Amino acid sequence: MLARVRASFDRQGMMSTLGVEVTAAERGKVWMSLGHDERFTQQHGFMHAGAVASVLDSACGYAAFSVMPPDAAVLTVSYTINLMAPAAGQRFTITGEVVRAGRTLVICRGEAFADGGDRPFAAMQATMTAVYGKAGITG
Amino acid sequence: MLARVRASFDRQGMMSTLGVEVTAAERGKVWMSLGHDERFTQQHGFMHAGAVASVLDSACGYAAFSVMPPDAAVLTVSYTINLMAPAAGQRFTITGEVVRAGRTLVICRGEAFADGGDRPFAAMQATMTAVYGKAGITG
Amino acid sequence: MLARVRASFDRQGMMSTLGVEVTAAERGKVWMSLGHDERFTQQHGFMHAGAVASVLDSACGYAAFSVMPPDAAVLTVSYTINLMAPAAGQRFTITGEVVRAGRTLVICRGEAFADGGDRPFAAMQATMTAVYGKAGITG
Amino acid sequence: MLARVRASFDRQGMMSTLGVEVTAAERGKVWMSLGHDERFTQQHGFMHAGAVASVLDSACGYAAFSVMPPDAAVLTVSYTINLMAPAAGQRFTITGEVVRAGRTLVICRGEAFADGGDRPFAAMQATMTAVYGKAGITG
Repeated sequence: MLARVRASFDRQGMMSTLGVEVTAAERGKVWMSLGHDERFTQQHGFMHAGAVASVLDSACGYAAFSVMPPDAAVLTVSYTINLMAPAAGQRFTITGEVVRAGRTLVICRGEAFADGGDRPFAAMQATMTAVYGKAGITG
Repeated sequence: MLARVRASFDRQGMMSTLGVEVTAAERGKVWMSLGHDERFTQQHGFMHAGAVASVLDSACGYAAFSVMPPDAAVLTVSYTINLMAPAAGQRFTITGEVVRAGRTLVICRGEAFADGGDRPFAAMQATMTAVYGKAGITG
Repeated sequence: MLARVRASFDRQGMMSTLGVEVTAAERGKVWMSLGHDERFTQQHGFMHAGAVASVLDSACGYAAFSVMPPDAAVLTVSYTINLMAPAAGQRFTITGEVVRAGRTLVICRGEAFADGGDRPFAAMQATMTAVYGKAGITG
Repeated sequence: MLARVRASFDRQGMMSTLGVEVTAAERGKVWMSLGHDERFTQQHGFMHAGAVASVLDSACGYAAFSVMPPDAAVLTVSYTINLMAPAAGQRFTITGEVVRAGRTLVICRGEAFADGGDRPFAAMQATMTAVYGKAGITG
């Protein structure tokens, strides 16, 4: 399962460009790591919400993927993100976790933490879907 | 007002890195343009939802900013995004529009379109906040 | 189609208890009406967000239902609601409209207006799903 | 604090009409209980999502209220709810919990469980705001 997660993750140009790493993964939960990078800031110098959201989205997506059948691909249906404080820090830990998995839809939650803190600065609730047998859509 | 939007936009490393342009802006509505870029794809080769969400977030943020007092800075409180189809195409048009502006919170909606189509492939509903007199937070 | 919407609507105890009426419906859009009622207020005397959300949810659900095949049932996957002002007034108009319909998921938006005003006090973005051949789930 | 929560809760016509009880409350977390009731069903006979959402909204609101200063009133800015399974059962336990409290905005999450189960059938992420010195808005 972890191999499937990593293989799919490695095909995401976005994650590579952002410099994201999968630091840990288990069935239903994934941890990722993102560093501060001037290329991805917003107008006040903090990391852009979109960069943080991208990683939260990927973390939730792979958490969902980790509980899907081996022939499923995963797509994001929707997510809600609350930005509770600016993404201020040097290194961010981002988690994604399955809340409940249905036959097709998997609901996840994610959180983002800065510099080893334990108070999340962003929280996501996401709806992921399993996709089967769609040309060009694997992983 | 448009000058304030552009000045703030130009300070967003993320928008510059993604190659986003503000193509039009009026009081309460902003249009942006994003091109397909291998650096920001997801595992199936489409643009990553996070890249599209980043631009929708910025478009909604600047739509909100455009109706705020001149001394306000804008921050994203939260947003919900529905990805209704993959971001498949060469050029994407992204809009942000104010639904209702309160004293502090401004609610916006955004949509993303591919290659001149008129059927959105992504829809956002966002909550923005005006911030005043916070050190280092302008625009 | 309108007959299917009304038949399903009439089976919702919640809508009957709230005193909601379907005032108009066309393919992809539904209008409902709700009156102020002391039984459904929040602590400040306004209609409870949950009552307004229930009607927005139903309006979006039936807008989605109106574009689904005749043998589909409709269920709500998720929705996001922004309460932009209190539900202050005597009569509320609530709309639900399809943004984009996929094979299974239908994305809708809804708005709530008080006393004939044209500025929404609540806005919803909803994900609906078509369900087929599930025992006991029709309409 | 618990007294303030109960005093405000007792003024909600909606909670009384739905027959909701506050079963427990501590700083930052509230538990409520709701019974199945034909008056609040959807078209398939399950409790309407709107009824469940109303209680989740209230549970999140009072969780937020419990960490606010004594002179604050609480209002819902927005929430996202995922309905992961129908609200099938006789008695529902609904929780609301603070994720992070800012000076004005408090972010909460809530979950709904049926008949003593430990797998949530609904999950909410909510943004609450503290309101001060607004005529007629207390609690």
